[in-house]
Amino acid sequence: MTDDSPTVEPPPTFELDAATAVEPTGPAGTFAFTVDAGFTVGPKPNGGYLLATAARAVGVALADAGSAHRDPLAASAHYLWAPDPGPATIAVEVLRTGRSASQVRAVIEQDGRRCVDLTLTVGTLAVAPAVWTRAIPVDVAPIEDCVRIPSRREGSDFVVSTMDRVDLRLDPATMGFAFGAPSGRGELAGWIDLPDGRPIDPLALLLLLDTLPPATLDIGPSGWVPTLSLTAYLRSLPVPGPLRVRQRIGTIGTGRVDEACELWDATGALVAHATQLAAIRFEDESALVPPPSP
Amino acid sequence: MTDDSPTVEPPPTFELDAATAVEPTGPAGTFAFTVDAGFTVGPKPNGGYLLATAARAVGVALADAGSAHRDPLAASAHYLWAPDPGPATIAVEVLRTGRSASQVRAVIEQDGRRCVDLTLTVGTLAVAPAVWTRAIPVDVAPIEDCVRIPSRREGSDFVVSTMDRVDLRLDPATMGFAFGAPSGRGELAGWIDLPDGRPIDPLALLLLLDTLPPATLDIGPSGWVPTLSLTAYLRSLPVPGPLRVRQRIGTIGTGRVDEACELWDATGALVAHATQLAAIRFEDESALVPPPSP
Repeated sequence: MTDDSPTVEPPPTFELDAATAVEPTGPAGTFAFTVDAGFTVGPKPNGGYLLATAARAVGVALADAGSAHRDPLAASAHYLWAPDPGPATIAVEVLRTGRSASQVRAVIEQDGRRCVDLTLTVGTLAVAPAVWTRAIPVDVAPIEDCVRIPSRREGSDFVVSTMDRVDLRLDPATMGFAFGAPSGRGELAGWIDLPDGRPIDPLALLLLLDTLPPATLDIGPSGWVPTLSLTAYLRSLPVPGPLRVRQRIGTIGTGRVDEACELWDATGALVAHATQLAAIRFEDESALVPPPSP
Repeated sequence: MTDDSPTVEPPPTFELDAATAVEPTGPAGTFAFTVDAGFTVGPKPNGGYLLATAARAVGVALADAGSAHRDPLAASAHYLWAPDPGPATIAVEVLRTGRSASQVRAVIEQDGRRCVDLTLTVGTLAVAPAVWTRAIPVDVAPIEDCVRIPSRREGSDFVVSTMDRVDLRLDPATMGFAFGAPSGRGELAGWIDLPDGRPIDPLALLLLLDTLPPATLDIGPSGWVPTLSLTAYLRSLPVPGPLRVRQRIGTIGTGRVDEACELWDATGALVAHATQLAAIRFEDESALVPPPSP
């Protein structure tokens, strides 16, 4: 059932490819890149964008090591320090090359400061239906009834430049937060795609898994929700077209929240999912909307 | 709401403490330990046991580095090679010491071969209720109606020695697999505790999160289900007493399965949860029991 044809690199004419371009430097496994100002949340780069860039370097390092493995199957990223747009480096260390998968570590640094520590399991991803799943695609409004999230809300100085390069349309039923009326379900859902027509390959999946606003918006306003640790699993290549997306809270306590993000393609296949632990501080904990009774 | 008193190391009289004992060796951050033959699945050590042992070494290394952080809050482990019972080493590298949490990498090696690559976010865990959660405690039979899982099933040569050191009692409603009648729900649930009375601290939580048989048993028999990558989040210290536990499948496809494990204490608090991606091969894919209709 798997497709063993080699992964073909798309031409670097799309925004995501230009922004994740990596340049081998001196020693094997070391790369230079530029943290792109177009994939940011406020002044700092999107975590999924950094993960996708590291995955690109990992693919090059595995090719150099003689491995045919290119596609991340599992990736975990620990965010140590948020870099700024500008020059940065990636150091890749191949931990093990196996028959069906290889395991690799990567570290993103800027100005000598370690920013992201990543470990990836890399193999070959195919378009493949699930044998068994409980991950039923989220029931969302048709894409034409959903609302595109802009890079800047009217009256706000906070720019999420990523939203100019990712087409995220949220179901109005999950957008109560925009009108001061969060539902308390702790869930955002809708459709997501790349607006410049770039195919959604494994690198794009890594980006899209960490692009939604925090689902904590749906229970109440909070400060900054910085990711401590993110784990992504890629399960199938998607068929062409926008993906359904759902981001939801698990549990909030002692200043930390876990959130899960799931992506489904037009066939209903769960193509990728991620979980993250983030730090959070609410402006007013007593004003949070409680979850609906089950 | 947090308890800032320092974590007190329990006396090393319990089985888990003896089995996870680490000995500092020459350079800072390097430790020797013995992979214990009492926490195995067949001939190989349990993954949660290795994670707990690494977390113990990380706590010592952070103390040596002048940090007060001891408790894993998030941990991800990538399993490269299964070690055998016997001597092994752990190398700990402190990546960042922060105000509320520190981030650390650890590598377990045996005979010069890298076995487990881990990254941990470490802070201070308290007994703390959730501010918001969708993780309702699993509804299971009373503990006295559940069935203790033995280290060896009658007529089998396969020994899970961990089951002599972890008291796992499964709800008979989730044990159809034992009689050749899996339910198709892809779920195992019951109660879990340490039988020698050791308090369930963060290290024990790491062990208990990876102790259940694969929930794939509840849809059909498979071969070995080796974990590729495991991510654990610890959310609260539990109050004393056995924990409710649920292990369930997310999605199975192209030779990989994701499973989630959740642990709740007697107050109903979600104290820890984990997700893992494992490799799987079914004896007969066409004989799998499909999920019930939602």
